[in-house]
Amino acid sequence: MRLDIYLTPGEVVPGEIAERTVVVLDILRATTTITHALNNGARAIYPVSSIEEALRLANTFGRDEVLLCGERKCLPIEGFDLGNSPHEFTRERVAGKILVMTTTNGTAALSMTGGAARVVVGSMLNMGAVVAELVRSGGDPVILCSGRDRHFAVEDAVAAGAMATRLMEERPGNWVLNDAALAAVALAREFGSNTATFRNSESGRALLATGHESDLDFCAKTDTLNVLPVLHERNITLSQVPAS
Amino acid sequence: MRLDIYLTPGEVVPGEIAERTVVVLDILRATTTITHALNNGARAIYPVSSIEEALRLANTFGRDEVLLCGERKCLPIEGFDLGNSPHEFTRERVAGKILVMTTTNGTAALSMTGGAARVVVGSMLNMGAVVAELVRSGGDPVILCSGRDRHFAVEDAVAAGAMATRLMEERPGNWVLNDAALAAVALAREFGSNTATFRNSESGRALLATGHESDLDFCAKTDTLNVLPVLHERNITLSQVPAS
Repeated sequence: MRLDIYLTPGEVVPGEIAERTVVVLDILRATTTITHALNNGARAIYPVSSIEEALRLANTFGRDEVLLCGERKCLPIEGFDLGNSPHEFTRERVAGKILVMTTTNGTAALSMTGGAARVVVGSMLNMGAVVAELVRSGGDPVILCSGRDRHFAVEDAVAAGAMATRLMEERPGNWVLNDAALAAVALAREFGSNTATFRNSESGRALLATGHESDLDFCAKTDTLNVLPVLHERNITLSQVPAS
Repeated sequence: MRLDIYLTPGEVVPGEIAERTVVVLDILRATTTITHALNNGARAIYPVSSIEEALRLANTFGRDEVLLCGERKCLPIEGFDLGNSPHEFTRERVAGKILVMTTTNGTAALSMTGGAARVVVGSMLNMGAVVAELVRSGGDPVILCSGRDRHFAVEDAVAAGAMATRLMEERPGNWVLNDAALAAVALAREFGSNTATFRNSESGRALLATGHESDLDFCAKTDTLNVLPVLHERNITLSQVPAS
């Protein structure tokens, strides 16, 4: 059994993830927000890489059923309905809606998952559900960290390490880890996936500087949502969580 | 004072390293071998990315003054004079010679350093000399890990973390670290830059599998050589080490 972690999307060599289950993490904040929005009743989320593509895609849906969401440099995009702060994605705003979302890092990572058997969206919020899915599906899972502007992001690495640690506890066996997985497990032990770690990270400092302090606490909450967002074709919807 | 570490060459955004001192690490084995070869009297080392380029460049020198060196997948290249194992680069073989070297990862990282004020080649062997140079030169240094086939390599990260830790001790101040530097310092604390860490790494396992066990011990030796290899134009030579 192999467990491979990629600390940045640029490390992904396409053949390596073929036919494997890939978990995509962008803890601050895209995959956290996606998990939260789907739990609050959003029908589907379309991650796209550019503002132009978001506008074009949104026009193919009815104006009443779609919300334009996303950020650039932590800030909302002019003319869009929602930013990328999970606090904005309340049940009142998103229930029954299709969300077209463009974020700097998370959507870039999701676009690297072509050829995977299954693409799961992970966060601290739904870590237990993601680990349960990796136990259920077996095989050689991959955890892909979105990072920050092509760079390593410590909060994604510690979350990946925490996820890997739980997976190895819940599906014990003779695991072979790549170097990034070895490192991520050690970083999870050193730092912990908590608000203090998030505040010290580059993404955390950028969020603090743009007035998003409460997002840091939100994104560090663990196991609050038993949902499993899955990317299929071009959009993310909730998959049935197997009964535990 | 900023200290930025890049865990893989793919993370380098050119503008970010402009006018800064960049230390390149490929602990297993290219930068270790380069350091050792120059200490053994090699006149200059030309890192190149392809076998064809190595052959073309070697032809511009006299046949007696040049050695072709390098590896692919840890193994020597047919028709080349030397591989990439430091044990081959004895004083008898390399003194007075120009070395044209192509390796999988180290030369790729060196090629990403355009625009830097100064490019230093680091290893465990000459860590003290590298740190002394970073103290002397001041500014906001960068440590660039070569990694392994585009991926994160744990031995490079722990060496970078050990180097960062010593730099902050020897040049105390209000350091701002990027996420990768925060992580590398923690990994150096967790793992230590020793033979056991190297054996468990992917590069170490590949070296063990190809019969290069003694290279692991060699590459883990710390502070054995007080030399400072510097890349200038297209080749690496020894710079004067300032008196300490």
